[in-house]
Amino acid sequence: ATYTTGASGSPKLLFRQLFEKESSTYTYLLADVGHPDKPALLVDPVDKTVERDLTLVKELGLKLIYAMNTHVHADHVTGTGLIKGMVPGVQSVISKASNARADLFVEHGDKIHFGNLFLEVRATPGHTLGCVTYVTGDGPEQPQPRMAFTGDALLIHGCGRTDFQGGSSDQLYNSVHSQIFTLPKDTLLYPAHDYKGFTVTTVEEELSHNPRLTKDKGTFKNIMENLKLPYPKMIDVAVPANMVCGFQDAIEKPSKALAS
Amino acid sequence: ATYTTGASGSPKLLFRQLFEKESSTYTYLLADVGHPDKPALLVDPVDKTVERDLTLVKELGLKLIYAMNTHVHADHVTGTGLIKGMVPGVQSVISKASNARADLFVEHGDKIHFGNLFLEVRATPGHTLGCVTYVTGDGPEQPQPRMAFTGDALLIHGCGRTDFQGGSSDQLYNSVHSQIFTLPKDTLLYPAHDYKGFTVTTVEEELSHNPRLTKDKGTFKNIMENLKLPYPKMIDVAVPANMVCGFQDAIEKPSKALAS
Ligand SMILES: [Fe+2]
Ligand SMILES: [Fe+2]
Repeated sequence: ATYTTGASGSPKLLFRQLFEKESSTYTYLLADVGHPDKPALLVDPVDKTVERDLTLVKELGLKLIYAMNTHVHADHVTGTGLIKGMVPGVQSVISKASNARADLFVEHGDKIHFGNLFLEVRATPGHTLGCVTYVTGDGPEQPQPRMAFTGDALLIHGCGRTDFQGGSSDQLYNSVHSQIFTLPKDTLLYPAHDYKGFTVTTVEEELSHNPRLTKDKGTFKNIMENLKLPYPKMIDVAVPANMVCGFQDAIEKPSKALAS
Repeated sequence: ATYTTGASGSPKLLFRQLFEKESSTYTYLLADVGHPDKPALLVDPVDKTVERDLTLVKELGLKLIYAMNTHVHADHVTGTGLIKGMVPGVQSVISKASNARADLFVEHGDKIHFGNLFLEVRATPGHTLGCVTYVTGDGPEQPQPRMAFTGDALLIHGCGRTDFQGGSSDQLYNSVHSQIFTLPKDTLLYPAHDYKGFTVTTVEEELSHNPRLTKDKGTFKNIMENLKLPYPKMIDVAVPANMVCGFQDAIEKPSKALAS
């Protein structure tokens, strides 16, 4: 499927990276400010920072149309439910493979249009079964260098764990190598998290310096199987909430209006 | 004074924003990767994240030449001392008006060259007497839009306090209005801190939405005089350390080598 908002004017990307400290999550705001409607989308919004994000959207005069997730997060509750309750008309977006609820389901190869800009959907399973990477469009009027929102598939000099939610180190290795490392070398990679204060990396940098994914597949799988990570403290709250993203919260808190 | 590194090749900015969680400080890495030497500089490095920053510099194949401060920080210890000890040849930079120690002192109107790129120095006193804003160059081969590293003079929808270190709300108002708000509207403003997870703003956005600096000067001064902020917990450690930035630490820890 391809979702379009109508097109006129010359595309111009407004881009903001936003950080939620407690879960070290990055949320991304993208908008086509060359389009008269200034259509915008949020990638991986967090429930705790929805008010901040929507205030920014409003101040910048944007029209939020999509609240998207790269995957069903286990470490924080998505903001899509609250957003849908606060901004009527916004549609939640997640991959069909995630088996979560949402307004729109995307699959590998789909394009998500906002004004004259678009994101391309690439299936990058391995951290979870339904992980996707959203990549800015390829074309003369699309942003240069390209930008990829990798979720937890690829982190800066790291990657997401593969030991639950349908994770597979074999699949993650294939996903990153075939879908992310094949992008142009100068592609800016924006992850869902960073724990050391980094904000961005590039394909070129990860091809040289990712301590896990530069290894051969056998070594990578061995690394991933021996991480001995603790059970994530938020998972029993976050996963059920995120599986119904945009629905449970919308029903429970239907009329919370955004302070102006 | 103008500091030059020699020039050849076509300038191309590499830019990284880096976050130190404890003091919510942003450090900025800029380099001319179009120049064969890839000369680089760090703005407002923090002692606690020097190892991270220098590892990144090394991985990206950059040659660090300057470790600069926007002002004498009261909330964290600058990384310039450690950097000078770990990377021979790096010069620390601060404003002459700060009265701090450093290798190079800058004044309003100076240009700091790295390869074929440069930063312009604008005096923006008010948070401290010696605050400067570093602005990317104006010219056909300089980055577009322009970028300004405002320190604590202008924060995202805020500004630094003016109640010590030679602070003056009157001066801060004049500095921001004459030196920052006069930059092109699309200039990207990168502050020394953010406490809410914002990473960047623009002149246009602050002209419309800064809750303090959009007011008239009398109202602004009144706001600043009634903030009733607590005494900063780090000031008695940070200010003396930062006044001798790049010297005290360099003498005490001369031979700590960067892990490779
Ligand atoms: Fe995740
Ligand atoms: Fe400060």
